Amino acid sequence: MIGGGSWATAVIKMLSDNLTEKEIYWWLRDTASIAHLKQYKHNPKYLSSVELRIPEDNISNDICHIIKQADYIILNVPAAFLKESLSGVTPEMLAGKKIVSAIKGIVPDENQIIGEFMNDKFNVPLDDILVISGPCHAEEVALEKLSYLTIASINLETAGSFSKLLNTRYIKTNISDDIFGTEYAAVLKNIYAVASGICHGIGYGDNFQAVLISNAIREINRFVEAVHPISRDIKESAYLGDLLVTAYSQFSRNRTFGNMIGKGYTVKSAQLEMNMIAEGYYAASCMHVVNKKYKVEMPICRAVYAILYERHSPQIEMALLTEQLN
Amino acid sequence: MIGGGSWATAVIKMLSDNLTEKEIYWWLRDTASIAHLKQYKHNPKYLSSVELRIPEDNISNDICHIIKQADYIILNVPAAFLKESLSGVTPEMLAGKKIVSAIKGIVPDENQIIGEFMNDKFNVPLDDILVISGPCHAEEVALEKLSYLTIASINLETAGSFSKLLNTRYIKTNISDDIFGTEYAAVLKNIYAVASGICHGIGYGDNFQAVLISNAIREINRFVEAVHPISRDIKESAYLGDLLVTAYSQFSRNRTFGNMIGKGYTVKSAQLEMNMIAEGYYAASCMHVVNKKYKVEMPICRAVYAILYERHSPQIEMALLTEQLN
Repeated sequence: MIGGGSWATAVIKMLSDNLTEKEIYWWLRDTASIAHLKQYKHNPKYLSSVELRIPEDNISNDICHIIKQADYIILNVPAAFLKESLSGVTPEMLAGKKIVSAIKGIVPDENQIIGEFMNDKFNVPLDDILVISGPCHAEEVALEKLSYLTIASINLETAGSFSKLLNTRYIKTNISDDIFGTEYAAVLKNIYAVASGICHGIGYGDNFQAVLISNAIREINRFVEAVHPISRDIKESAYLGDLLVTAYSQFSRNRTFGNMIGKGYTVKSAQLEMNMIAEGYYAASCMHVVNKKYKVEMPICRAVYAILYERHSPQIEMALLTEQLN
Repeated sequence: MIGGGSWATAVIKMLSDNLTEKEIYWWLRDTASIAHLKQYKHNPKYLSSVELRIPEDNISNDICHIIKQADYIILNVPAAFLKESLSGVTPEMLAGKKIVSAIKGIVPDENQIIGEFMNDKFNVPLDDILVISGPCHAEEVALEKLSYLTIASINLETAGSFSKLLNTRYIKTNISDDIFGTEYAAVLKNIYAVASGICHGIGYGDNFQAVLISNAIREINRFVEAVHPISRDIKESAYLGDLLVTAYSQFSRNRTFGNMIGKGYTVKSAQLEMNMIAEGYYAASCMHVVNKKYKVEMPICRAVYAILYERHSPQIEMALLTEQLN
């Protein structure tokens, strides 16, 4: 596991319920967290209620050491920090290993989803790329609330093997061959959660939110059809479900971030107030660049970009947006 | 307008902003409400904050008198009371008039949606049937929060003319030719809102709700495709949006009703505690009968039916359901 945030901690919990703990190797950047984990068996910063009995020797901030031990490398840091986290890692170190993206983000500057990035920069064959997706807040995994995950890989057998490692009493898994669609949908939904928060902050009600989200899933569908036109049902949990949980849930930090913007906070002050990264902020910029190539009609994404990066008034931008929805 | 509930009051408000009030004729059953409306210009029971300046002579509990004046008859009573409300009304009285269903329900015993029922029992040509649908809680209309409605009619010109009467500063309208799909979707979503409430009451979290609703829209899609296979996008506001607002909103009485069932109330005691009719309760039974003909796979509807009508344990029934979702 590469990463020490709440989602990384949640996935470690699922794996612990399937593997013996000694098969799990965990890289965290923060040495204080590592010391705490080794001593107290709890992550001090995220999902602190969860007991994590990983052997001390398996926890390290030496990423090359951790990668060497593992068959599956689960990337689970914010997309904005992926490059930095992987500095020192070479394509040779990853040869023959499966790379699992649990990031749901786009690599800034590169504007590539994780699979593309790992394929392009580390020569990982697309066949060895997996994506964990699905409507799944880490906080509810900690509470062992029933959740469904989708594991995507071009190689369905690989998806099936890995999904078995996550299946528990409170986690059900599906498999899919849509590594591009699931990851893009997962990235985009963060932007719509920001939009949803902005509208709520301005004062739009539940009636409008329902229209916004029903338009958002159509935007997602148009985009993934343009990027990777395969047969898929966008109403499945990995796409629509993931959008819903992010746009409607109280746990969504993207929605919270948007809400602050809608209420008049600047981007800077909203980010300072929040202790977590709102992935949707970065995603809005990356998708703006990526969509210059595909030119898909995405009025909601465009409005969020204009508000966050071009200092457009949330009130005016959203009022203009309402004319384009139906 | 036939009906005096919150949705009827909300539609009267929209119409008042377009027609001069004297073109609106309003039937209510309750004479005390009529007296209050005439004297104080507010509905004493529903959306009481809204001023309604309908002339005294236009408000009556004589349904035949009201129908005689009108070009459009907007049916807006709970489906369970439609037959009783229309007693005394003959097919001749409705000849040449447009019938607008704002009910979103199925007529009990007959197990017909409103358009079918009016066509079958009152010889109203299908061409003269309209349906008002869309994600629109009456409470938010009272607050003039931006909302979108879909007006359906086989005759799109009729839909267009009527939609103009509802368009206001805070209401945007779409038109559609799908009178069967929109009405069935509107009926079904109440059952899913009950399901959503039951699951919440039992203790399922947001992650599961997202899976439930993404399965629900697929159930709706399968059903309307079986009943009336035309080209439609189930992700539009009239279908998906309507489901979302009902399943996720705090205003939803179906969700509240379900929540009480999930927490262990009996159907009787939940109904006694609530001051409003949960349409989803009746819909679950009607759809159970209707689907005997179509035999569409609808595991969520089946689970709700078993809990409400066959006294199955909500915990066990929902646990079984989780195995059938993905």
